[in-house]
Amino acid sequence: MKTRRRPERYNPNVKNRRELVAFQGELGAFSQEAARQLLGDSVQVKPYPRFEEVFQALKSGEVGAAVVPIENTLHGSVHENYDHLLNFQLQIVGETSVRIVHNLIAPPGVSLRKVRRVFSHPVALNQCLKFFADHPEIERVPYYDTAGSVKMLMEERPNDAAAIASAIAAQIYGARILKRSIEDDRANFTRFFLLRRPNDPAPALRSTPQRGWKTSLVFTTKNQPGSLFRSLSAFALRDLSLTKIESRPLRGRPWEYLFYLDFLGNVEDPKCQKALGHLGELADFIRVLGCYPRGE
Amino acid sequence: MKTRRRPERYNPNVKNRRELVAFQGELGAFSQEAARQLLGDSVQVKPYPRFEEVFQALKSGEVGAAVVPIENTLHGSVHENYDHLLNFQLQIVGETSVRIVHNLIAPPGVSLRKVRRVFSHPVALNQCLKFFADHPEIERVPYYDTAGSVKMLMEERPNDAAAIASAIAAQIYGARILKRSIEDDRANFTRFFLLRRPNDPAPALRSTPQRGWKTSLVFTTKNQPGSLFRSLSAFALRDLSLTKIESRPLRGRPWEYLFYLDFLGNVEDPKCQKALGHLGELADFIRVLGCYPRGE
Repeated sequence: MKTRRRPERYNPNVKNRRELVAFQGELGAFSQEAARQLLGDSVQVKPYPRFEEVFQALKSGEVGAAVVPIENTLHGSVHENYDHLLNFQLQIVGETSVRIVHNLIAPPGVSLRKVRRVFSHPVALNQCLKFFADHPEIERVPYYDTAGSVKMLMEERPNDAAAIASAIAAQIYGARILKRSIEDDRANFTRFFLLRRPNDPAPALRSTPQRGWKTSLVFTTKNQPGSLFRSLSAFALRDLSLTKIESRPLRGRPWEYLFYLDFLGNVEDPKCQKALGHLGELADFIRVLGCYPRGE
Repeated sequence: MKTRRRPERYNPNVKNRRELVAFQGELGAFSQEAARQLLGDSVQVKPYPRFEEVFQALKSGEVGAAVVPIENTLHGSVHENYDHLLNFQLQIVGETSVRIVHNLIAPPGVSLRKVRRVFSHPVALNQCLKFFADHPEIERVPYYDTAGSVKMLMEERPNDAAAIASAIAAQIYGARILKRSIEDDRANFTRFFLLRRPNDPAPALRSTPQRGWKTSLVFTTKNQPGSLFRSLSAFALRDLSLTKIESRPLRGRPWEYLFYLDFLGNVEDPKCQKALGHLGELADFIRVLGCYPRGE
């Protein structure tokens, strides 16, 4: 009897460990935490102000990989990044999700009693409403970035102000956490994609990751009644599970849509190949955006 | 032989013509144009700074109706308003789409040659990139609102600045249009919903509108493989056309989704009733958000 080798766990960090990984935001952003989860503590990151610049940096070879948020369990998809996935023609090679924990952070010497203003991104301020209801003496001040608000406080050192950001931001800028986990809703996760250039080595097919594979693709249907239903039949009739579907407007064809779809399976598996072939018969356009180990 | 009466065209303005209609933005916003298209030139509008306040004003009876944008052909859905539709439990009673025409607008006395700065909402500035490429001497200045930028220029009267906004904004604030239709892409439309309280009279069933009826609903599927496919079968198997499907995250159940769906048909039609009954068997939750004459 042959012994079956235990399949290797896929490690997306196949290349040079010193490569740069692009993300959007300031150092200490949740994207940096996602990069750590995906590529390990020694990951070398490079922040960019805008998502488009992150995609451009990867496309041009300025960095070796990029980590971008794609959806949040409270706010929904990051639609801008769906559009960039289509336009930049990069490859999704991994995914992970990060629990969004908001902490009240201040420069050393500032205690909670002294705080009268809290700076953060408007979304983060809005996710900590219970904290502000309990502290009516504190004013909310919108700022362009969560981690950026910690950076600014450490530079300007006001003695009555704090920020809301990740624990990693406090650590990076040398600030103190006054209160941990002040977010209203703990079911707050953001899903991130790890991207590489399409010519970079794809994950090895034979090594089965712990939670199986996921494939992301984008397609347009013919503008006919029932066309989305028929497109989904390519997956449903083969018992392939969809985990996400997202519609985006199709430029130049008002009221028609692109569909972004994630399903559980590996593109090189014969069943998935048949599903994609079937979808190809029904769709006007189809492109696989990546096939990657399903994240936690 | 009986002569068949020509069906009346549905007029959503069934009530008091003097009623107030809420919209988000400053006077002169595209939402105001949508309100005119839906309710006629004599419509009395009331602007609110935020979408949530628009929904709240209608819910509380402060206004009789509300007009809100739901999707744009370049940018996609206005997801915040999808969430409000679910939470405020109002009724969609009409829809219309407005072509987004951006005009360069300045106070009287300011000519195009003098313009060095252009104020507008960042989205509008980004939709006129060809104009800015042709005029490298002009700086783009982000402002909170399109119509609001015209209002501000008319108050402050700088002699080197213009705004990008609708023609109606120029008219309202007494400004001049320096250049019409400077938007890059003419396939730029925004779809708006007309909302009323649920106890208000629904459109009469017998009067068939010119382009037929549309129904909007929201549902959640059981979290099982193939559940979205089976849900859509309720419509596809009855030849009911879907015109839109949108997924939104389900709060408290990470990575599960609400689906907002529009289909062509009237909820009181027996075929539609059967489709909704069928969907009810498959869905965890279903709510009809409105049934209204299909817009242009």
